[in-house]
Amino acid sequence: MDTVNIGLLGLGTVGGGTLQLLKRHADAIERRTGRRVQVRRALVRDLAKPRPAEAADVAVTTDPDEILDDPAIHIVVELVGGCEPTRAWVLRAIAAGKHVITANKALIAQHGNEIFAAADQHGVIVAFEAAVGGGIPIIKAIREALAGNRIESVAGIVNGTTNYILTEMRDRGLGFSEALAQAQALGYAEADPSFDIDGIDAAHKLAILAAIAFGTPLAFAGVATEGIGAISAEDIGYAEALGYSIKHLAIARRDEEAVELRVHPTLIPQRQLLARVDGVMNAILVHGDAVGETLFYGAGAGALPTASAVVADLVDVLRLLSADPDHRVPYLGVRPGAIADLPLRPLEAIHSAYYLRLSVEDHPGVMADITRILADHEISIEAMLQRPDPTRPDTMPIILLTHRAWERAMNQALDAMSRLASVRGPITRIRVQTNGTW
Amino acid sequence: MDTVNIGLLGLGTVGGGTLQLLKRHADAIERRTGRRVQVRRALVRDLAKPRPAEAADVAVTTDPDEILDDPAIHIVVELVGGCEPTRAWVLRAIAAGKHVITANKALIAQHGNEIFAAADQHGVIVAFEAAVGGGIPIIKAIREALAGNRIESVAGIVNGTTNYILTEMRDRGLGFSEALAQAQALGYAEADPSFDIDGIDAAHKLAILAAIAFGTPLAFAGVATEGIGAISAEDIGYAEALGYSIKHLAIARRDEEAVELRVHPTLIPQRQLLARVDGVMNAILVHGDAVGETLFYGAGAGALPTASAVVADLVDVLRLLSADPDHRVPYLGVRPGAIADLPLRPLEAIHSAYYLRLSVEDHPGVMADITRILADHEISIEAMLQRPDPTRPDTMPIILLTHRAWERAMNQALDAMSRLASVRGPITRIRVQTNGTW
Repeated sequence: MDTVNIGLLGLGTVGGGTLQLLKRHADAIERRTGRRVQVRRALVRDLAKPRPAEAADVAVTTDPDEILDDPAIHIVVELVGGCEPTRAWVLRAIAAGKHVITANKALIAQHGNEIFAAADQHGVIVAFEAAVGGGIPIIKAIREALAGNRIESVAGIVNGTTNYILTEMRDRGLGFSEALAQAQALGYAEADPSFDIDGIDAAHKLAILAAIAFGTPLAFAGVATEGIGAISAEDIGYAEALGYSIKHLAIARRDEEAVELRVHPTLIPQRQLLARVDGVMNAILVHGDAVGETLFYGAGAGALPTASAVVADLVDVLRLLSADPDHRVPYLGVRPGAIADLPLRPLEAIHSAYYLRLSVEDHPGVMADITRILADHEISIEAMLQRPDPTRPDTMPIILLTHRAWERAMNQALDAMSRLASVRGPITRIRVQTNGTW
Repeated sequence: MDTVNIGLLGLGTVGGGTLQLLKRHADAIERRTGRRVQVRRALVRDLAKPRPAEAADVAVTTDPDEILDDPAIHIVVELVGGCEPTRAWVLRAIAAGKHVITANKALIAQHGNEIFAAADQHGVIVAFEAAVGGGIPIIKAIREALAGNRIESVAGIVNGTTNYILTEMRDRGLGFSEALAQAQALGYAEADPSFDIDGIDAAHKLAILAAIAFGTPLAFAGVATEGIGAISAEDIGYAEALGYSIKHLAIARRDEEAVELRVHPTLIPQRQLLARVDGVMNAILVHGDAVGETLFYGAGAGALPTASAVVADLVDVLRLLSADPDHRVPYLGVRPGAIADLPLRPLEAIHSAYYLRLSVEDHPGVMADITRILADHEISIEAMLQRPDPTRPDTMPIILLTHRAWERAMNQALDAMSRLASVRGPITRIRVQTNGTW
């Protein structure tokens, strides 16, 4: 089989994102795995409902049997959510010898033990990277990349809705209800937000994280769960005053005797990275006996981030189907014949903002000379600091931050400035990261 | 073959750490992979030199042939470093049909194209997770977990020595030479520190990251490299004043036309997580078209963190050797028969620090009552805030941070406090993370 056929259960936000990635990256997936992927059919609830543009050429059905009973479908991707009827569908797909990829945390947390046993019995894969942390590859990190460790604890911000609410309460001084209403207006919280704000969603994810971290059975019922409803704007203010941020955390710890599984608001010292994870972002801190502390940060929800994890699972399955076990993952991520050869851009052709520090003789006209040179090279100034240095009364340090400019123009400007009689010694130039652009 | 035999090239810091993990986690590795691992022989430079305790029962040799020509050795782990003679050794191991695991960034960055071609020809695996980011699983993250993305950029702090020096310059106002001398005294910098401070080590790592992120050939010679020698304490101070931290970054970007590969100091806005990565820690920010921004943080060097990556590679290879492709990675990280069943600790048995907020009538004796109750339950107070709330003149909010205590004792104390006549309304209790203990 050169083309691998997929059946998609669910064509909502994540389903649309998955179709979009499969289309956009069809060639890249083939470069990585040697396979073409075809979405053979998608299950929808209502044929009349408008569908995302990327679903225009996908055959749809309202009958799950048309996917579960189709022998040409190799992989079922379950993006419906909830435990029923998805549990029955997933078990049927497994029994029919189909691999399953799911983003369904409730299903895995509550029925994973049963589902994994069925998958073992039928020799198929059940992959669920998208169930925890959205686009953050935390399942793979713990289960594979930290396999040389005894994991001591996992502590994470795994629910974007509660993190958004707590961040808004802190940054804008909103009360809990106001922040929740705002999250609902922006689509970050459901009309019935209890799954998120009471911590149930986080508890599902924690049950999964703990099981893979400790190699123990899934134990959702054992998670002690507290939501954020009791946190007031005052508490957030007092915590700040004491040097802490309040975050809603999912925590799994183990020692020699027992495992602790708990979801609750927690004060975290502000100097820690986890305290700086704001808005809808997620982050998970894993402590292993060998690696020490590691942190994995990214978008915990959303169509494309979640689809990123779904497609990663798909690539994993395709790489296994591709059979040559010694080369499951190509060295450079793509198969040897598919390596690209993009040209290398020389440093002088990059576009960057800059920090400049010059020592100048402090007399009239020197700033005019410098700003004229920058303007001549189409470099504009964003900020300037000029602070007399008492230890060097004869010169004045000037610090400039520029907007983005071409490195070639900056080199020429630096050259011209260094020839000014009033500029003393070398000019320091350091590149600046601006607006997320490197 | 039930036992897999390993030949170890190099028994220095990382070699010692690897032996330590293989010994400590021998049972866990068997639970994960179904295999026992045996270190059959280790190459050392000098038989007379004292060896780490964990190497006491390992056969050693000064002759690489005793490892490379031994048909009983299945996997060669190369931890010598440098390009010669390691390149020849690795190529010989590959030609002899042995899988290779290496932590050698210089070797992969400069000779990876040749080594990967040889491995393809001979059908063996060359794994190199430990070459970049120490214990941070960045190779696996990019090559597998983000395979559903087009990676747009990778930007990271990948050299702990330079990050330590820049952090000390900022936090203690040291000059570059002083900070370097201190790093050398602490063993964070080599006697000849040029590989680190001139950015060559970072350039090796960047070449590897860029190749796997973009699916392009390794291009170490194309990396534009600047060290940190020209950064002064003043620059760091001015950058802080402008709202930035200076970090030594390895940056790979691509667009439709070209790839940029550069290592240089960079001003980063302080609100970004990367600006908060201090000391010897490493972090790598990956931007993918689907996932958006993800960050991977952890220890970039050191015996055990690096060994963590080496053993993860080993587990990967063992899982492939274990043949059942559909179950390469068990659902819960360990094979179904090996799942542990640790008891669950009830919430009242946890040990945590606490934040408490009470509203009290502001009259003499109320603080004495509260502190007496806490003392009776062996709960000690770390900090206290008492701020009159002008909107509620009849009551006074009291905020307490406690040291760690048993949750059961805290529950009892809360119960007793809430029965005090002077305490009004419910008491807010939030758990606090202290000293890295959850």
